Amino acid sequence: MIRRLSAEAIGSFFLFACVVGSGIMAESLAGGNVAIALLGNTVATGAILVVLIAMLGPVSGAHFNPAVTLAFLIRREIGAGEAVLFVLVQIAAGIVGVWAAHLMFDLPVWQFSVKPRTGAGQWLGEGIATFGLVLTILGTIRANRAWVPASVGLYITAAYWFTSSTSFANPAITIGRSLTDTFAGIAPGNVAGFVAAQLVGAVLAVGVARFVWGEGEDG
Amino acid sequence: MIRRLSAEAIGSFFLFACVVGSGIMAESLAGGNVAIALLGNTVATGAILVVLIAMLGPVSGAHFNPAVTLAFLIRREIGAGEAVLFVLVQIAAGIVGVWAAHLMFDLPVWQFSVKPRTGAGQWLGEGIATFGLVLTILGTIRANRAWVPASVGLYITAAYWFTSSTSFANPAITIGRSLTDTFAGIAPGNVAGFVAAQLVGAVLAVGVARFVWGEGEDG
Amino acid sequence: MIRRLSAEAIGSFFLFACVVGSGIMAESLAGGNVAIALLGNTVATGAILVVLIAMLGPVSGAHFNPAVTLAFLIRREIGAGEAVLFVLVQIAAGIVGVWAAHLMFDLPVWQFSVKPRTGAGQWLGEGIATFGLVLTILGTIRANRAWVPASVGLYITAAYWFTSSTSFANPAITIGRSLTDTFAGIAPGNVAGFVAAQLVGAVLAVGVARFVWGEGEDG
Amino acid sequence: MIRRLSAEAIGSFFLFACVVGSGIMAESLAGGNVAIALLGNTVATGAILVVLIAMLGPVSGAHFNPAVTLAFLIRREIGAGEAVLFVLVQIAAGIVGVWAAHLMFDLPVWQFSVKPRTGAGQWLGEGIATFGLVLTILGTIRANRAWVPASVGLYITAAYWFTSSTSFANPAITIGRSLTDTFAGIAPGNVAGFVAAQLVGAVLAVGVARFVWGEGEDG
Repeated sequence: MIRRLSAEAIGSFFLFACVVGSGIMAESLAGGNVAIALLGNTVATGAILVVLIAMLGPVSGAHFNPAVTLAFLIRREIGAGEAVLFVLVQIAAGIVGVWAAHLMFDLPVWQFSVKPRTGAGQWLGEGIATFGLVLTILGTIRANRAWVPASVGLYITAAYWFTSSTSFANPAITIGRSLTDTFAGIAPGNVAGFVAAQLVGAVLAVGVARFVWGEGEDG
Repeated sequence: MIRRLSAEAIGSFFLFACVVGSGIMAESLAGGNVAIALLGNTVATGAILVVLIAMLGPVSGAHFNPAVTLAFLIRREIGAGEAVLFVLVQIAAGIVGVWAAHLMFDLPVWQFSVKPRTGAGQWLGEGIATFGLVLTILGTIRANRAWVPASVGLYITAAYWFTSSTSFANPAITIGRSLTDTFAGIAPGNVAGFVAAQLVGAVLAVGVARFVWGEGEDG
Repeated sequence: MIRRLSAEAIGSFFLFACVVGSGIMAESLAGGNVAIALLGNTVATGAILVVLIAMLGPVSGAHFNPAVTLAFLIRREIGAGEAVLFVLVQIAAGIVGVWAAHLMFDLPVWQFSVKPRTGAGQWLGEGIATFGLVLTILGTIRANRAWVPASVGLYITAAYWFTSSTSFANPAITIGRSLTDTFAGIAPGNVAGFVAAQLVGAVLAVGVARFVWGEGEDG
Repeated sequence: MIRRLSAEAIGSFFLFACVVGSGIMAESLAGGNVAIALLGNTVATGAILVVLIAMLGPVSGAHFNPAVTLAFLIRREIGAGEAVLFVLVQIAAGIVGVWAAHLMFDLPVWQFSVKPRTGAGQWLGEGIATFGLVLTILGTIRANRAWVPASVGLYITAAYWFTSSTSFANPAITIGRSLTDTFAGIAPGNVAGFVAAQLVGAVLAVGVARFVWGEGEDG
């Protein structure tokens, strides 16, 4: 159990540090061209996801995401008690990752975002983004297990661009990103709407995945 | 059958939403530099193709494309009745994906493109693009089956840049892209020329593939 | 034999069309920023190489490059007669690919480059680039055969950026690129210097590979 | 032994030539947009790492990095004598790679960087970067051995963007980069701080990896 929680902590730390840190780096270098900044942010985030899932997947499942843990809880592939611990560790270690990014870039550790991210379009974006993420995970585990690390990294690479919200798709990272007033930030008041949309998308994906790939044990 | 059609629907939805959505995002952020916009559009489209084929290939074959379904029909690897249903689902679910992109970005759902895409050069481009796409699918299935998801994603990544038409290479997506007046659009009057060129390319590829990789069952 | 030559023809056609076509596309869209243009050119070239080698490698070895054919000739893994035919097909089909790119982009088919590419620095670049390419092919075949398609694509991706000549690394493509007065061109008078450097690099790599990975049959 | 040292020499030569050469190319073409320059530098470096590890990993382990050699020394997977030789070869062959980049780009061979890279934020960045690199190597060897080449390339791809120091994460390359007054340079007086932070990160990673993935023989 401790090894599994450590794996979730390490993965969440690096994932959140990467999302926030690469956003800071990209925005500071991009000379105002937001597409170039998003490109840097995308490449870094997609790449670190592949790495973290390849190395930590066999230890903890490499969730780093309460929406993913919820999906496995509904499928009874993780117990309720462990799921709660997973989520707490994801949030806590992820926030430490955000703070580490601030320290690396000589910024104040304690910040709150003032960037508004709200509205029906973005909520739909988060719902679709998380639906697709959970579908990717559950479907690829059944259809093509060796591809899971690459598929998750590539899915987020795509979703950063095709959703209006740039695809947070992760309640823990949504909370973490409210604590940084940088490129990746989201105003704390907008967190609840994003998280609600994400959880709806995740639950729908569990149902659709059961229909498309069938019941039973993982591949 | 329903599971296979559902897989085609899910894949077409995400593929079309990604092509159109990432085009909207990329163009709106790129500050007028079209190469940067195309880079964002390319990275997202190539990435989602790998993901969708890896997860849905074992269910439906992951066509998402009437030209690909036609190729498998000629090879008698899909029946005529199922092929018709595949194509209808690809178009219908794909259009829903285009509309979802509009909703995510707070744009009117119902649009028609006014972007002209026509002329002998672009038709040659579509013919070559689709010839290469079908050849990639048929050849890689025979030569290196595990590489199919990556190869198709990478082929489209390249073809977005080396063809003058940016490689639609898919009659369903050509129809879908006529319904969006954004970066990825094509004027409805130009659809027929693109689709004709695509079908010619696909048919030629089936013949060439038979010669190069031989007859017989897939890998 | 005809199937093998066809495979070399198809691969050379798409490789050369991609190098030249993506250069035209990238330069025309990049608004004068050459780094962005090279990025588009790089992504397309690296991607198509992976695709072509994965699908055609099991048929012909997927050389598409006289320097690679020379390396296999020295290693006696291809006969002299077949090697000559391979080289002729690579040049001929590749030039057709260059012309197809011109036709797709509505440019005159028959062109000569006026872009100077010469000097000791660039010759050293071509020597190192081709040395590394042949080493990658021979070494990866022995050490990690399944990685060959990805490794060659990624090697050229890197070499486009780390060599001063942007890594032609291929005598046939050097000839082909003298026939296009676009981004990828090279003045005809500078071809001989590039080809000489490439052949020196290839021969050296055969010797070094024999030492590092040992003798004997491939993997 | 000679074959193993040769493999370390070849890998370090190409790695350092690529880091420095792609930095020169990217900066000279990017028209002052540093994010675009870093993107070119990142793509090239990540790509060459995958290539070099796939081809040379089975020969020498593909360290190219004294921090990695130190980690394997602590784990007693390499002897002290060989480790010293590895480090000397990495530094020497890597410096030759830096000089080759200068020669390719017609720059003076002998240079010293004047670019300051120092301060607590950047040292923390180097510590985290190297901790993550060594963790990636040790963890992926245990959890998913076939992914090691891709994971290391992708890790550095991400780390170039999420650390304030752009992730040198390698004492040998830190020394090598002090000898180039170009994009990738670091002033000689700042080398010691970077190297110290890297070694701390590497040692910590060995301990954490032992806890998370357990003891015993590699995969």
